[in-house]
Amino acid sequence: MDFFYTNLIYLIPVFGLVGIAVMAIKAAWVVKQDAGDGDMAQLAGYIADGAMAFLRAEWKILSYFVVIAGLLLAYSGTTVATSSPVIAISFVVGAFLSAFAGFLGMRIATKANVRTTQAARTSLAQALKVSFTGGTVMGLGVAGLAIIGLGSLFIVFYTIYVKNAGGDVNGDAMAKALDVLAGFSLGAESIALFARVGGGIYTKAADVGADLVGKVEAGIPEDDVRNPATIADNVGDNVGDVAGMGADLFGSYVATMLATMVLGREIVSHDSFGGIAPILLPMVIAGLGLIFSIVGAAFVKISKETDSVQRALNIGNWASIILTAIATFFLVNWMLPADIFHMKRDELGGGMLKGGSIEFTRGDVFGAIVVGLVVGTLMSMITEYYTAMGKRPVLGIIRQSSTGHATNIIAGLAVGMESTVLPILVLASGIYGSYHFAGLYGVAIAAAGMMATTAMQLSIDAFGPIADNAGGIAEMSRLPEEVRHRTDNLDAVGNTTAATGKGFAIASAALTSLALFAAFVGVAGIEHIDIYKADVLAGLFVGGMIPFIFSALAISAVGRAAMAMVEEVRRQFREIPGIMEYKAKPEYEKCVAISTKASIREMVAPGLIALITPIIVGFIFGPEVLGGLLAGVTVSGVLMGIFQSNAGGAWDNAKKSFEKGVEINGEMYYKKSEPHKASVTGDTVGDPFKDTSGPSMNILIKLMSIVSLVIAPHLQKDVSHSPRLQREIHTQSMIAPVTKPVNKI
Amino acid sequence: MDFFYTNLIYLIPVFGLVGIAVMAIKAAWVVKQDAGDGDMAQLAGYIADGAMAFLRAEWKILSYFVVIAGLLLAYSGTTVATSSPVIAISFVVGAFLSAFAGFLGMRIATKANVRTTQAARTSLAQALKVSFTGGTVMGLGVAGLAIIGLGSLFIVFYTIYVKNAGGDVNGDAMAKALDVLAGFSLGAESIALFARVGGGIYTKAADVGADLVGKVEAGIPEDDVRNPATIADNVGDNVGDVAGMGADLFGSYVATMLATMVLGREIVSHDSFGGIAPILLPMVIAGLGLIFSIVGAAFVKISKETDSVQRALNIGNWASIILTAIATFFLVNWMLPADIFHMKRDELGGGMLKGGSIEFTRGDVFGAIVVGLVVGTLMSMITEYYTAMGKRPVLGIIRQSSTGHATNIIAGLAVGMESTVLPILVLASGIYGSYHFAGLYGVAIAAAGMMATTAMQLSIDAFGPIADNAGGIAEMSRLPEEVRHRTDNLDAVGNTTAATGKGFAIASAALTSLALFAAFVGVAGIEHIDIYKADVLAGLFVGGMIPFIFSALAISAVGRAAMAMVEEVRRQFREIPGIMEYKAKPEYEKCVAISTKASIREMVAPGLIALITPIIVGFIFGPEVLGGLLAGVTVSGVLMGIFQSNAGGAWDNAKKSFEKGVEINGEMYYKKSEPHKASVTGDTVGDPFKDTSGPSMNILIKLMSIVSLVIAPHLQKDVSHSPRLQREIHTQSMIAPVTKPVNKI
Repeated sequence: MDFFYTNLIYLIPVFGLVGIAVMAIKAAWVVKQDAGDGDMAQLAGYIADGAMAFLRAEWKILSYFVVIAGLLLAYSGTTVATSSPVIAISFVVGAFLSAFAGFLGMRIATKANVRTTQAARTSLAQALKVSFTGGTVMGLGVAGLAIIGLGSLFIVFYTIYVKNAGGDVNGDAMAKALDVLAGFSLGAESIALFARVGGGIYTKAADVGADLVGKVEAGIPEDDVRNPATIADNVGDNVGDVAGMGADLFGSYVATMLATMVLGREIVSHDSFGGIAPILLPMVIAGLGLIFSIVGAAFVKISKETDSVQRALNIGNWASIILTAIATFFLVNWMLPADIFHMKRDELGGGMLKGGSIEFTRGDVFGAIVVGLVVGTLMSMITEYYTAMGKRPVLGIIRQSSTGHATNIIAGLAVGMESTVLPILVLASGIYGSYHFAGLYGVAIAAAGMMATTAMQLSIDAFGPIADNAGGIAEMSRLPEEVRHRTDNLDAVGNTTAATGKGFAIASAALTSLALFAAFVGVAGIEHIDIYKADVLAGLFVGGMIPFIFSALAISAVGRAAMAMVEEVRRQFREIPGIMEYKAKPEYEKCVAISTKASIREMVAPGLIALITPIIVGFIFGPEVLGGLLAGVTVSGVLMGIFQSNAGGAWDNAKKSFEKGVEINGEMYYKKSEPHKASVTGDTVGDPFKDTSGPSMNILIKLMSIVSLVIAPHLQKDVSHSPRLQREIHTQSMIAPVTKPVNKI
Repeated sequence: MDFFYTNLIYLIPVFGLVGIAVMAIKAAWVVKQDAGDGDMAQLAGYIADGAMAFLRAEWKILSYFVVIAGLLLAYSGTTVATSSPVIAISFVVGAFLSAFAGFLGMRIATKANVRTTQAARTSLAQALKVSFTGGTVMGLGVAGLAIIGLGSLFIVFYTIYVKNAGGDVNGDAMAKALDVLAGFSLGAESIALFARVGGGIYTKAADVGADLVGKVEAGIPEDDVRNPATIADNVGDNVGDVAGMGADLFGSYVATMLATMVLGREIVSHDSFGGIAPILLPMVIAGLGLIFSIVGAAFVKISKETDSVQRALNIGNWASIILTAIATFFLVNWMLPADIFHMKRDELGGGMLKGGSIEFTRGDVFGAIVVGLVVGTLMSMITEYYTAMGKRPVLGIIRQSSTGHATNIIAGLAVGMESTVLPILVLASGIYGSYHFAGLYGVAIAAAGMMATTAMQLSIDAFGPIADNAGGIAEMSRLPEEVRHRTDNLDAVGNTTAATGKGFAIASAALTSLALFAAFVGVAGIEHIDIYKADVLAGLFVGGMIPFIFSALAISAVGRAAMAMVEEVRRQFREIPGIMEYKAKPEYEKCVAISTKASIREMVAPGLIALITPIIVGFIFGPEVLGGLLAGVTVSGVLMGIFQSNAGGAWDNAKKSFEKGVEINGEMYYKKSEPHKASVTGDTVGDPFKDTSGPSMNILIKLMSIVSLVIAPHLQKDVSHSPRLQREIHTQSMIAPVTKPVNKI
């Protein structure tokens, strides 16, 4: 065991390398599959080209941003004694790895789609294998690169700032190492902002635009090759649901580890790892989670046409979660001493932990991790309930579609609002429970536990849009009924996994933000965030408002971009004769260009709000007001995220229910009926809700927290909470001698 | 001056009596006006009967509630040493006066409506006079009864608990007097819950139901006598917009005074009123505001048909605000000493004010009041901008109506979300500014300053639905064009005042809640509300969720009730032959009964949430977690209130814009065009938003705060924040002797 005691820190990146190696094998296997005949290959080529066009445009903007932000970080690192310009390197590495993971995932996703269609000509089992393997490339790529990056940088910074300098593992030396490491998380989350918000705008501008003219005006089905926006729509699935979701989870994954490490510095642990076991723990758990995700992925297969695809995915998912949980139990017992303390912060040169130190056991740490796993599972289940076909919420929307567009909308909004109740109660209990076990370290490690099997979660998430694309290609190429039937089967499962994946992503973002929030308070060195102070309360209000303006900007962006798309599609139908008779090919690339340009342009304003607000508030009003702002953003952002995502999901499935026919007050209604038309309105409203503004909340709350964490060491603690407080008087000397006037009148 | 120094406290109810006397004169004048001929009188009779039917049904439930809640209050007052069963009397008086004010206002409103129609046969000037005088009855009744009730009870409790007992005006004796007085505010706000939420459900169930079948299915215009739901719709205007709004503002008016008085106890003031000037001040300001509202009302008149009604209302409003502000300047200088101190709370036997006492001047107090006036004015102006015809937000919705129902909805939701930004910034600045001037007393007195001219605000608010009803009666009675033109003119102004009134009501609710929040913390005797503690943060999350479930319940209630209304209207059209040919009279009373029953039934669930949640959280988790809950409710409630009210208002005016015709991309569109139909969908969605769930947020946040304030003395301060914190260790003794393991690995 001695070898492991000494070298565990160096093994962490090895977990990541294993993930990347398996990813490479899977990617090679996917590429080797049959890509189908001429028509299919050509369509898939358009989609792949469109996706790369978006990435190129995004990267151009991103590279400017990364250079400018990196220089600013380096400069501020140079000017502030407690920090280091090296943080800029972390930042660039984080940004690069996140972007690279997105590139790999999308590259394979745009190859897996057409190969899935081709495999569906043989059997459902083979189609599942191709599409899910495509998904695992994304999952393993994200998790692998994240662990390699974070683990390697930690080795470097730990060696430089702590080990070689002989610094205290609980003191300022480690604080500096982790401060510099935070740049990695900031870089990753910045990319996520552009990928998730930009991707969300892209995909829905194309989707709404394609639907409004194609389905509604021209009366052609979805994924019809005659619709000029159909390629953009399929590109959008990759851009938004593969790259966007991947960057989102990459960010959460890294940030939870980082936040746990920052809090882990404050843990006094008499372990065999030189006292840094609490800091290493989240990374090792993530490494195990990656390995068991690979194992779990092996369970995802079916043998017969009638086997349940959903069940296969569930088995794989549960296998990886349960195996990771069991392994974590042994890991915690091996790594941590029986008793550990969360120290009073002021003894460590930082701030102060309220009410003295907390003592807890390694069993408590495992308890907190279990809380995280339970929270993640429950959030996914609740999300599924509120958005699944045949359940009360969706049935209610269907029923209220019978009285028209307006009542359908009212019903969906009410479902979305109602759907916040259980997740918030679960989350609040999770905070309470994990804190109960192991204080703030418990809250952070719970989030890390929940994120351990990110590779598996993301594999399942990425499988969805690949299946969706495969169906689109089958439809556009007018392949036989049975092929289409198989891709529809996969697509339907993909819709469910998309919903549960969103629940997981929101839960992860919420717990990540809380972990970062806790880390921020420590690093900023403040005692309380007291909302009884007027300025902190004002910060809470302003913070609560930000998700509303962010959502408004995202939704409006989709509206504007969709209008531009509508104009372009109408123009092509008008000016290119023969499209409707399949005689002329639409100019797909023009629609792709519109979505690309719009998404890049429209993500700037919300992005700046997320990046700049904490900096302004922090430097003008101090860390405590910034803490109030963060709390407001997090609470309001989680609520708006759940509200919008679930309303959108429920509207979507209410509409889909009409495809098989629904019964309202004893009568059956199908597609093209009046209630169905009302349900299409709801779905169109829900599109930007569930795929643009809703998921953007994840990024917003995480990014504002990570920015705050990075600037925390630079903030002045002693900003006065009101200029007037300088007039404070010492009461004993001034009030005591006063003779009270008569108390009666 | 000596007389005033000694007797000011007894003069406070006199202000109220003056208001009630003027109200009686105005009411008598309205009743004396010509009520028109047979048809009109009959329709007005239906409306009046329907309104009274609702009030009777509401009162039945209310009387049960008041008796039970009163007994519980009396019991808890008996069992807890610091409190008194007398609080139950305060509670019953508050509930009774609020209900009585609503009764008076609605009684006159249902008489003023038909008299306005009749007056419109003569001139616009006369119609304005009748409708606005009707409105002032509500305004003066609410303000007058509130001041009489609160002022008289204060005299009684002050005499018993402080003066006769020789107690300390800054100490426990006064705390007890104010604690008992809080029952008055609780009673008033409880009535507001039923009036605002029940009234909101009533009015929109009738409105949506009437529109869906009447306008959309049967193709008959609004306010058509053939529509069975039309009377219920007109009753709804009175029930929701007169009685509901009146109870809402009655509650805010009383609560701001009370909160300022509770904080005023902590002010050490060497004044000529036995040290209670800071406690009397908010009531005297309200009294002056009432007198100057009467003066301002005299300015509301026009002489020619072409005069602007809006301008007349604005002049009256500004006159009352400016006169009150000037008078308040002199009042503050007369009542308060030059320097006053907000004491450290632990010297007063309560909790502790952070960072020692604050010293401020009477000029600072006036400064805080001005902040309140500015906040109220700005909030109204911003609300108008976001909901007014011809401004960017509404024009954007109109433009996006051209691509269908869905884009209209998306545009409206985005406008609503965006419209939260400026009000929140104004509110946050207001909190910061008023605190800067005079600490927490400043925040409360700012709210009181803003509410000073409640009588005038409410007169203008109540004028709206009277004018709306007058128009409805003119339409139903098929009066000549010129009459209809005059009532339309008044109605249009009423729509604007409804929007600005909502902005004012939200601002008042927000500031009231904050003032109550500050008072709660003092009475509960806690030092901080530290959201860095896990359980307080969990409370913040749960609190933030409550406005979402409350809104969902309110919206769903409207949906369900509207469906029942639709069924009934369809049934009458089917089963009563001759309705469409004006040969048979519809059964109006059945529709009235449906709205009445539905509203009474559906308000129970949201009402219980608002009343019981703070009690459960407070007693199980302690006052600090309850404080977190309140902050969450307030922030989220204000945001959801502004979002929903403004989205609804903007959709409404986007629809109304089509009546005169709108230009989209160079083409003109009118009623019955496709874009107009899309705008009708938006308006229908917006109806429950702006008239049910949106305004309900005001009550929710105030009621939860006042319940918390009332239970505050009963809460145990020392509830552990986590069971695990009991394992806390004193670090110095336990960690210090530990020998650190090697720091290097």
